[in-house]
Amino acid sequence: MEEEQIVNPWKVQSKSGINYKKLIEHFGCNPIDGEIIKRFECVTKMKAHKWLRRGLFFSHKDFTKCIDDFEKGKQIYLYTGRGPSGDMHFGHLLPFIFTKYLQDAFNAIVIIQMSDDEKYLFKGGDLESYINLTFDNAKDIIACGFDVNKTYIFSNANAIDTYLYHNIVKIDGSLSGNNINSIFGLDASRKVGEIAWPSKQIAPAYSNSFPDILFPLCKYTTRIDKTKKYDGKDINNMLCLVPMAIDQSPYFRVSRDIAEKFGYMKPCEIHSEFLPSLGGIAEKMSTTSGSYPPIYLNDTLETMKKKIDKSFSGGKDTKELHQLYGGNLHIDVAYQYLLYFEEDDKILSEIAHKYRSGKMLTGDIKKKLFNVMTNILENHKKSRENISDDVLCRFFDRSRNFIIKPINRKDIELSTNDEYSKMGINFDRTYGAIYPDGAQEYEQNLIDKM
Amino acid sequence: MEEEQIVNPWKVQSKSGINYKKLIEHFGCNPIDGEIIKRFECVTKMKAHKWLRRGLFFSHKDFTKCIDDFEKGKQIYLYTGRGPSGDMHFGHLLPFIFTKYLQDAFNAIVIIQMSDDEKYLFKGGDLESYINLTFDNAKDIIACGFDVNKTYIFSNANAIDTYLYHNIVKIDGSLSGNNINSIFGLDASRKVGEIAWPSKQIAPAYSNSFPDILFPLCKYTTRIDKTKKYDGKDINNMLCLVPMAIDQSPYFRVSRDIAEKFGYMKPCEIHSEFLPSLGGIAEKMSTTSGSYPPIYLNDTLETMKKKIDKSFSGGKDTKELHQLYGGNLHIDVAYQYLLYFEEDDKILSEIAHKYRSGKMLTGDIKKKLFNVMTNILENHKKSRENISDDVLCRFFDRSRNFIIKPINRKDIELSTNDEYSKMGINFDRTYGAIYPDGAQEYEQNLIDKM
Repeated sequence: MEEEQIVNPWKVQSKSGINYKKLIEHFGCNPIDGEIIKRFECVTKMKAHKWLRRGLFFSHKDFTKCIDDFEKGKQIYLYTGRGPSGDMHFGHLLPFIFTKYLQDAFNAIVIIQMSDDEKYLFKGGDLESYINLTFDNAKDIIACGFDVNKTYIFSNANAIDTYLYHNIVKIDGSLSGNNINSIFGLDASRKVGEIAWPSKQIAPAYSNSFPDILFPLCKYTTRIDKTKKYDGKDINNMLCLVPMAIDQSPYFRVSRDIAEKFGYMKPCEIHSEFLPSLGGIAEKMSTTSGSYPPIYLNDTLETMKKKIDKSFSGGKDTKELHQLYGGNLHIDVAYQYLLYFEEDDKILSEIAHKYRSGKMLTGDIKKKLFNVMTNILENHKKSRENISDDVLCRFFDRSRNFIIKPINRKDIELSTNDEYSKMGINFDRTYGAIYPDGAQEYEQNLIDKM
Repeated sequence: MEEEQIVNPWKVQSKSGINYKKLIEHFGCNPIDGEIIKRFECVTKMKAHKWLRRGLFFSHKDFTKCIDDFEKGKQIYLYTGRGPSGDMHFGHLLPFIFTKYLQDAFNAIVIIQMSDDEKYLFKGGDLESYINLTFDNAKDIIACGFDVNKTYIFSNANAIDTYLYHNIVKIDGSLSGNNINSIFGLDASRKVGEIAWPSKQIAPAYSNSFPDILFPLCKYTTRIDKTKKYDGKDINNMLCLVPMAIDQSPYFRVSRDIAEKFGYMKPCEIHSEFLPSLGGIAEKMSTTSGSYPPIYLNDTLETMKKKIDKSFSGGKDTKELHQLYGGNLHIDVAYQYLLYFEEDDKILSEIAHKYRSGKMLTGDIKKKLFNVMTNILENHKKSRENISDDVLCRFFDRSRNFIIKPINRKDIELSTNDEYSKMGINFDRTYGAIYPDGAQEYEQNLIDKM
């Protein structure tokens, strides 16, 4: 029996585009609706990120608890990670860009796990080379703008120790091999390291895995073994928010189940869609997607241009037909990428309108995307180059003090109550209008102006 | 089909005493013969330990390579461990007593793993309580006389990090769940932590798990991540010798197989028999052996006396019959314990002779054992009490310098070539004579003297 779509941590595949509503049901998540976005803006005094506004981060578990805690002045922390590889592309960057945004919004410490051990276990090869990739990839992550004073990056292979390991042992003592097989599809024919991997991704989502970083004001009591034990304050009571693409959700479903057993707080989740493959929306951007390779972070502009030009188009076969009937936004990869990368909602809306109405040709929208991406790629490369080894080193240094300064945000212009629909977006992606409820009216305005 | 004997890391059971010759075959080991013992004495200039002389440490893999390396002035190290528990008994102490002896003989660093994580995973309960037991049990281990300058004890839960974890990952990447099941009988119904346990016991047997301890003269090169990497010298080339009861051998069979793949040295093994249960030689001394509890290290003398008095006897039913036919040394637990704990071969031989010939009664041999054990138990308690928290702390401190001073042993009176038979012992246990080949003659001498 062929499944309509397969989405798990190791495979994302569909026949004609991912059905995200189904995924929300399947993974037991909740949609991010307009009310949540409004509340997020009011409490953090930050304008909702374009990916929230456009429904690209579309699903969550207990994200609202994070907003509640922030409102009460209670610290939360963010956790995300990456399996280092030699081919980092724009799809890989999305969760980090969004996590950086959330770091600003919640004034929160960010913990980033580099799972070089996972890569070694699942891909084979040489452990040392994956450890080297950890530091290489970390530069691309840091280039997203993380605040060194509030960010800890670690290599699993080099830094799993005391606190984290305690939680790994507890998780490994709570799951059977059969549990792992039914949740992750890893049976006894798999390597032990693969079967035992999930606990290592799960454990950092409990705040007592990092007491020294997250609870610097707690007092140590010296233990006979010279490891430090925290006393006086509860180190299990800080919420963790995990931004991720939705395929990672099974890990954190487990972590939420286990949390109850140990009296830990359940980690909160916020989920993104996948950046589509250049070959079409049925698959995500991936190194293994054959004839449509991803846009790598070290691509030259020329290479990127060729890739964008080759991307799957929602335009009509001839210029004449296109001008007559217009393009299909839903399947047009260039447009889908602009949803992610064009900053300005109004410009995006104009592009959508022109392309949908046939006024903008396939070549034009691809050129537009190329310009947007050129800007992003060049800025990324510049940021990356500016990261010295000293700075890189600081991100990996656990012994320093992590600094949270109180924030005093000025009131900014926030979206009004009316700007978010029940689906939690103020941008109708298939229609290309900023206000989905008033889309037709809005479009008429645009046409009138032209 | 009922098996004649079951011996694995979790169960030791036989119908009428363990057949150790079969185990040597089953585990692919080699017997320790007289030639090995002689060579060990000549090279280390240490008299063979009574457990070697009496064949209680009876089997090995590559033990001779350790002797070779010591002869060449090349350092080896020793690795052993314990799953901490609240009921430490004399059976638990044997490998440590022997390891302490080997530390002296080889002037070697000893690494002791306290597998609190293993206990938690296999027994359940509370991780923290097993970590506390680590420090409690460590005092009993230290009381065996380990040299603090050459000994590192670590809690797995607190101290698995960089180097050790690298090897754990590599091992976990080399074994499938099915491999673990076929070797250790741990199937997918078991906890993930149990399935993934073996790598944690195996990894310390590779010298590059402890480069900072074992290769202090190697130069560090600073890594970007502030972990240290060794440069210039090969940190994979120090032999590890693992003293153990033979039920642990399956772990190290795996470690030897995997060593080849990674270019590591195969760990060497030396195996002991099991200290029998007080209830009889078919089982080993064990907390779970029901109506015959072990002699615990914190037993009062009174309790110990009661346990010894109750122990299974090889004597005859009545005094008259005993005096006529004599006792059966092979099944007499008191005699078997004296094999382990009576220091003097000649005294032991006299006891054997008298008991076997009916001159010594069951009550007498038990009293003799009680006297020997009283001495050992009281000394142990005294040593244990003298261990301060500071000293305990030093054993667990990895950051200090471990010190190996050259040894200059004076020639001691070694056994001559003739004193060891081909079976590797100079004490016939069932006959109770020091020279098995000349046993009858020897016995005649004893009888003449009486």
